[in-house]
Amino acid sequence: MKFLRVNMTDETVLWQDVAPQYKTLGGRALTSIFINDEVLATTDPLGPDNKLIFAPGFFSGTSLINTSRLSVGSKSPLTGGIKESNVGGTVAFSLATLGICAIIIEGQADADSCFVLNIQDDTSANLIRADDLKGMRTYDLTRRLQHDFGTDTSITCIGPAGDSKLLSASIQSTDFDGRPCRAAGRGGLGAVMGAKGLKAIIVNRKGRIPAEIVDLDRFKKASKQYAKDVKTDEFSGEILPQLGTAVLVEPINAAGAFPTRNATLGQFEGVEKISGEAIAKIIEERGGQTRHKGCSQCIIDCSNEFVTSKGEYVTSSLEYETIWSMGGMIGNDDIDAIARLDFLCDDIGLDTINTGTAIAVAFDAGYGEFGDGEKAIRLVEEVATGTEMGTLIGNGPDAVGRHFSHSRVPTVKGQSIAAYDPRAIQGMSVTYSTTPMGADHTAGWVVDQNLEAFGGTVDPHGSEGQVEISRNTQIHMAAIDTVGLCDFAQTGLAAEGGFDNLMNMMSAKLGQEFSAQQWTELGTRVIKTELEFNRNAGLTRQDDRLPPMFYNEQLPPYNVVVKISDEELDSTFSDL
Amino acid sequence: MKFLRVNMTDETVLWQDVAPQYKTLGGRALTSIFINDEVLATTDPLGPDNKLIFAPGFFSGTSLINTSRLSVGSKSPLTGGIKESNVGGTVAFSLATLGICAIIIEGQADADSCFVLNIQDDTSANLIRADDLKGMRTYDLTRRLQHDFGTDTSITCIGPAGDSKLLSASIQSTDFDGRPCRAAGRGGLGAVMGAKGLKAIIVNRKGRIPAEIVDLDRFKKASKQYAKDVKTDEFSGEILPQLGTAVLVEPINAAGAFPTRNATLGQFEGVEKISGEAIAKIIEERGGQTRHKGCSQCIIDCSNEFVTSKGEYVTSSLEYETIWSMGGMIGNDDIDAIARLDFLCDDIGLDTINTGTAIAVAFDAGYGEFGDGEKAIRLVEEVATGTEMGTLIGNGPDAVGRHFSHSRVPTVKGQSIAAYDPRAIQGMSVTYSTTPMGADHTAGWVVDQNLEAFGGTVDPHGSEGQVEISRNTQIHMAAIDTVGLCDFAQTGLAAEGGFDNLMNMMSAKLGQEFSAQQWTELGTRVIKTELEFNRNAGLTRQDDRLPPMFYNEQLPPYNVVVKISDEELDSTFSDL
Repeated sequence: MKFLRVNMTDETVLWQDVAPQYKTLGGRALTSIFINDEVLATTDPLGPDNKLIFAPGFFSGTSLINTSRLSVGSKSPLTGGIKESNVGGTVAFSLATLGICAIIIEGQADADSCFVLNIQDDTSANLIRADDLKGMRTYDLTRRLQHDFGTDTSITCIGPAGDSKLLSASIQSTDFDGRPCRAAGRGGLGAVMGAKGLKAIIVNRKGRIPAEIVDLDRFKKASKQYAKDVKTDEFSGEILPQLGTAVLVEPINAAGAFPTRNATLGQFEGVEKISGEAIAKIIEERGGQTRHKGCSQCIIDCSNEFVTSKGEYVTSSLEYETIWSMGGMIGNDDIDAIARLDFLCDDIGLDTINTGTAIAVAFDAGYGEFGDGEKAIRLVEEVATGTEMGTLIGNGPDAVGRHFSHSRVPTVKGQSIAAYDPRAIQGMSVTYSTTPMGADHTAGWVVDQNLEAFGGTVDPHGSEGQVEISRNTQIHMAAIDTVGLCDFAQTGLAAEGGFDNLMNMMSAKLGQEFSAQQWTELGTRVIKTELEFNRNAGLTRQDDRLPPMFYNEQLPPYNVVVKISDEELDSTFSDL
Repeated sequence: MKFLRVNMTDETVLWQDVAPQYKTLGGRALTSIFINDEVLATTDPLGPDNKLIFAPGFFSGTSLINTSRLSVGSKSPLTGGIKESNVGGTVAFSLATLGICAIIIEGQADADSCFVLNIQDDTSANLIRADDLKGMRTYDLTRRLQHDFGTDTSITCIGPAGDSKLLSASIQSTDFDGRPCRAAGRGGLGAVMGAKGLKAIIVNRKGRIPAEIVDLDRFKKASKQYAKDVKTDEFSGEILPQLGTAVLVEPINAAGAFPTRNATLGQFEGVEKISGEAIAKIIEERGGQTRHKGCSQCIIDCSNEFVTSKGEYVTSSLEYETIWSMGGMIGNDDIDAIARLDFLCDDIGLDTINTGTAIAVAFDAGYGEFGDGEKAIRLVEEVATGTEMGTLIGNGPDAVGRHFSHSRVPTVKGQSIAAYDPRAIQGMSVTYSTTPMGADHTAGWVVDQNLEAFGGTVDPHGSEGQVEISRNTQIHMAAIDTVGLCDFAQTGLAAEGGFDNLMNMMSAKLGQEFSAQQWTELGTRVIKTELEFNRNAGLTRQDDRLPPMFYNEQLPPYNVVVKISDEELDSTFSDL
């Protein structure tokens, strides 16, 4: 396995042996430990001293299904702290099968220049100057790159938002069909890539270098069983293929936890028009695709292809978080507008969550009306054209809130919460507040442990047990993000012997027994490293807080406020 | 003495006895200790739980000359920490002679409503609803209020920038001639007043309540001597009356410390057109006024009245900091444009320093050309009309820098540095970085101790001695800001026995001996309180740093960078 180290200042590309301390790492553990090792915490995230690292998961490129997560790590210009954002598609698999366990981007190209990095095989990679690509949207860009470099490539790239270094800029990656519709959306890492002057990384998909696995038989046996368990599970085997992540719309809304109109309400009156069932029906009627494969080695196929009434491609994949942020959050029940907004965010290179919430804050401050999907579309288009308002939207909810001196801004560390109101699912308030990542839902998704409909056993409106649940989940997720396993394939862990199976694969790959305790230690080490970076960057306990709106405003229909005390929040990781 | 406590939520006005712990305080000691006592450090600065306190200096209303400083304290929406900003004019004297040692504004009026507080005498004060005043500029506003409430009033008020809660919004106060041209400019406290729904405070000037002085004879004798010393001093007795603060332009530029074109240069080629001598000559030729009295009880008369070539009033007083921020900092050598910008900032209610630097950052990011004074005027006009770009300018350099992802933003804690480049006067780097106030120059002006032309003895380009000098000056200034003495009247301290004279006045007023050590303890206590508030608000050592540009870019013509280490910065107040 190799590190590919790319210096944008010198325009050099170096193949490096992997230093011993990184050899048993992958994904988020690798990106976070590396960033903490090599980046000064107080550095300007958009300056030459920040670094951007792309790392496939520890299991990427093995025979284990659904391990195509690519972790992207850096100091975030949005949160001011460390960030790992991961994305599916095909890039992680392509890199891993070329024997590349990390690409490191350092330095900074001249302000006006623009490069692509072309990784042709396991020994040749080079920077190519391509100033004319600057400002290009991702769909046009990837078509152009596929024309120039071949269709048998995986591409990760930025759109105009990243070129303009906007704080909600995503890094998009091509999916199984070669479309740039998969996003490492959170933390504004697209702005870091833009600041470096790197527009795209093109990775040959023909790598055949086998993953390093000490006990291959043991690994194969365990991974086979794991695949079977994921396939057998009702949620990952039947529901997700049918409805995709949009299946969450109805139960979360029923729980009064669907943040509506900038989180003034917990239920959206237009929910029936944007539910998983409604969307699947529309897609099927129009001849689009449900049960669509988005990522390498995926056996779940939770993706979809949304089309117009004439059957023309609109976007893929329309996901729960976007249906919320561009739907209920801005009061919009027009599914075609939501799908268009999803496409635009992918095309311009924007996090749909932060962007939808930015629009919601603008509407809440009186700049537009809740429910005006057409206005939302115009605003997102303005992000690309670079008007002042578009730039504010592209810089996220905090920028919009400051601009209008509007204090109802549902962010933590500058990053928007996701589609679970922390008042109606109190466990999410602990995750949003305390994760080193800003208000990420994937950092510790405890909805299942809170809501009875998901098998939850704690009171979602109470504080009891929430800190422990969030802490344990966050630690577990840090390890999951390290091995590169898709979140939805965690159903394999719930099967009988599922977790042992995962430990079996860890042991087989490493060539030494790996225990459940070591799994916890791995996750703990990742979070401890991230907390250390954030402290050095100047973040404090006061940054581990939800904004006052969640404490002061009762959320209908259950009229709840966040009940977790500051002391409870601070206890979450007080030992790390 | 009384506290006047005004609750904007309930629309109540309460006269209160002064609690014992505040009785021997005034000015900045009173505002900072009060804010730390009564405001939760993590509160939203623009929310109902923040408070805004106006306090005359401890010596205001006594026979001591030049004690007309009014301290305004609050949690700052600009810095996120505690703020004291003080202003001259006539309000402090009017309040003190009505026996009012503090006005406290708490709560928050409804978003659309707007009030004025009318203080008729020492027993009657009331809130008057005046929604039609919202958005009015300060010159029109004060003319209207003087018409309605009489010309024998002192007024402190906000302009449209404060109404819109912009982060560079100032609180303007009327000068000796009744013009709203004196600004508590820094920290965005105008936005706090706007958020409360308070447009203006009108104070009757006819108060005759004598100051509480235990040993009046001793006080009179000392204050008489002090006045004589200030009058005899060459700087306060001759130079300031002739040239005003603009006298600084040439020596600071000669030292290569005049931040030019967003601090890319230390000398401005157009300096001869905007020097103190040049301005005095223009004013005299046009029939304006130099040697103009701006504040109650002033014997220095450093103010001026700048007029057009036809003799029409443009602005008062054109000061060094504005000549820099609207001149060299934006590359503009047109003194008429500078004067117009000064007027516009007063009229719209904006800090000239933060606003000029915001424009400089915009120009540096490519939005306009350095030297385009007309564009600067249009941009400041846009602050009032509320365009997106105007709002960004009104929210200050950080908002503009974030908007354009431009990292050359010369601020600390979100607030612009002033007219002394910290590379060419290294002592200012300690003050800018470590003062709890954000990059305020008045918090610890150590130019005199750095530059040989001012009698300085340390190397202005070296780090040696700078921490100690800044620390001592900051502590001393915290005490000066407490008694309400004008900065320029500090020349009385340099006279033989001058400092003893000041201690004599402290002792006489308090009725017990007050030593030099107690003076230092007073200043130390103030800063300690402010640091405590900031820590509780979540500010850390990383907030006590200048931006990278001052460390990475050599400043011509002496090609210096900031040499004070992080450890030295952190040692400044490490014992507090």
